[in-house]
Amino acid sequence: MNADTAPWPCVAIVGVGMIGGSLGKAVLQRRLADRVIGVGRSAASLAEAVQRGAVSDTSLDLATAVADASLVVVATGVAAIPTLLDSIDAAVRPGTLITDAGSTKNSIVAAWERSRDTRRGRFVAAHPIAGSHRRGPAAADADLFVGRVTVVTPGPHTPPTDVEAISRFWAAIGSTVVTLSPAEHDTILARTSHAPHVVAAAIAAATPAADRRFTAGGWRDTTRIAAGDPDLWADILLDNGPAVAAAIESIHAASADMLAAITARDRSRLVSLLARAKEERDALGS
Amino acid sequence: MNADTAPWPCVAIVGVGMIGGSLGKAVLQRRLADRVIGVGRSAASLAEAVQRGAVSDTSLDLATAVADASLVVVATGVAAIPTLLDSIDAAVRPGTLITDAGSTKNSIVAAWERSRDTRRGRFVAAHPIAGSHRRGPAAADADLFVGRVTVVTPGPHTPPTDVEAISRFWAAIGSTVVTLSPAEHDTILARTSHAPHVVAAAIAAATPAADRRFTAGGWRDTTRIAAGDPDLWADILLDNGPAVAAAIESIHAASADMLAAITARDRSRLVSLLARAKEERDALGS
Repeated sequence: MNADTAPWPCVAIVGVGMIGGSLGKAVLQRRLADRVIGVGRSAASLAEAVQRGAVSDTSLDLATAVADASLVVVATGVAAIPTLLDSIDAAVRPGTLITDAGSTKNSIVAAWERSRDTRRGRFVAAHPIAGSHRRGPAAADADLFVGRVTVVTPGPHTPPTDVEAISRFWAAIGSTVVTLSPAEHDTILARTSHAPHVVAAAIAAATPAADRRFTAGGWRDTTRIAAGDPDLWADILLDNGPAVAAAIESIHAASADMLAAITARDRSRLVSLLARAKEERDALGS
Repeated sequence: MNADTAPWPCVAIVGVGMIGGSLGKAVLQRRLADRVIGVGRSAASLAEAVQRGAVSDTSLDLATAVADASLVVVATGVAAIPTLLDSIDAAVRPGTLITDAGSTKNSIVAAWERSRDTRRGRFVAAHPIAGSHRRGPAAADADLFVGRVTVVTPGPHTPPTDVEAISRFWAAIGSTVVTLSPAEHDTILARTSHAPHVVAAAIAAATPAADRRFTAGGWRDTTRIAAGDPDLWADILLDNGPAVAAAIESIHAASADMLAAITARDRSRLVSLLARAKEERDALGS
């Protein structure tokens, strides 16, 4: 790239929460854009995003902000994304690159594809697999995506050049880009994120408040994601219902196996099931 | 206490893993004993415990080591504790204080109580609710117990003076001592530790290896305890089988509630269940 020219002169980020704020910080610190316009509905959170160094400009008006952008990133909860994509597409200059950071991909890609013939922008859906239970621009971290996988999920008619252009963006902020179909993505994320969230929440919900003082690091770690935002997570879980249901059933089946070994007092079977779980966990590192 | 005299002149710690090593370090750094004898079956781990500052002396011979002690702490896996208590009791001077750090209490206290009339030592069972998935003297931490709860679980015939004497030890290393019956302890720990361990292991076991690169902080936190030692955990789970089974069923019921809301596409019900879990989790802090 030319040292004088940022690769994406103006990036608009719709939603300046933890993910949007981290994206903006990463773009600005890496000088990938001359301007990062944060778009939101709350003047207070936009002001905080500026103060945190997450965006250089702000706008409460989506259409005006994205009309200036060469790249638009939608970093809101998944339920809002299809409608926002329609509004964005109506306002961008033809050929503008658009991506998102939603945790589900099937319904978002399908909604875009239904009107593909009349679209002005070039949308390629994405999911940076990074994040935490923390929220808001105060939790923004320019290195959130470094070393993490971002999945891009083109539809059947997405031009390969668009996939390459969007992949360059996600690679430029430090992530490793992997291409999957939207359905593959949603099936895998049901197992690695959505169903574990439900089960972690179930552990927290099943623990009487009076027991809390008798918890240690195990309970604390296991339930940490249960602190995530209930509205955002409900939308993710509902948008990926059948895959999430199947993944919860798999976890239940695995713990039912261990429960059966406990009830049968079958020590060697129980050790073998726990050892297999430990192998899976150890393979990831701490 | 007299500034010239350590409260427990010689402490013997049976088992110098992460818990035993942390106990020894805490005792030595706080000058609660002149000598801490580490007792183990492996010369190599005893040598490492000395090198890590976890013990001042070592012994491969249990009877000789505990004969010198004014306080003996058994910090092995739960399955070994009842038999070790018999061996220790046969070798100590009459009136020697004895405690343990096992994660279950019913069977350990019952085994001691069955021979109470002929015991030489004064045993009060305990469980410091601290620890991690890490193992061995290399993971020893003198502050492991600071601010943590230690549950002491006297039997029906344990003299209150013995409970006080043992509670002083657990308080001296920084923990907050709470007295419960062995049955109360085991029921609560099934909910706060043993069942969550099984469910975390089930999440790890249910995740195909190929999915692992698509995990983030949520999966990583939720499954961390699945890296614990399978043999130690199998013994804990089998020793507390009925309570663990009931607690696993409660977690399954809570996640089945969420699953039902997902399947019924009942967003308000799902948000309310997730919000209740979040409240429980938030009450603990990060």
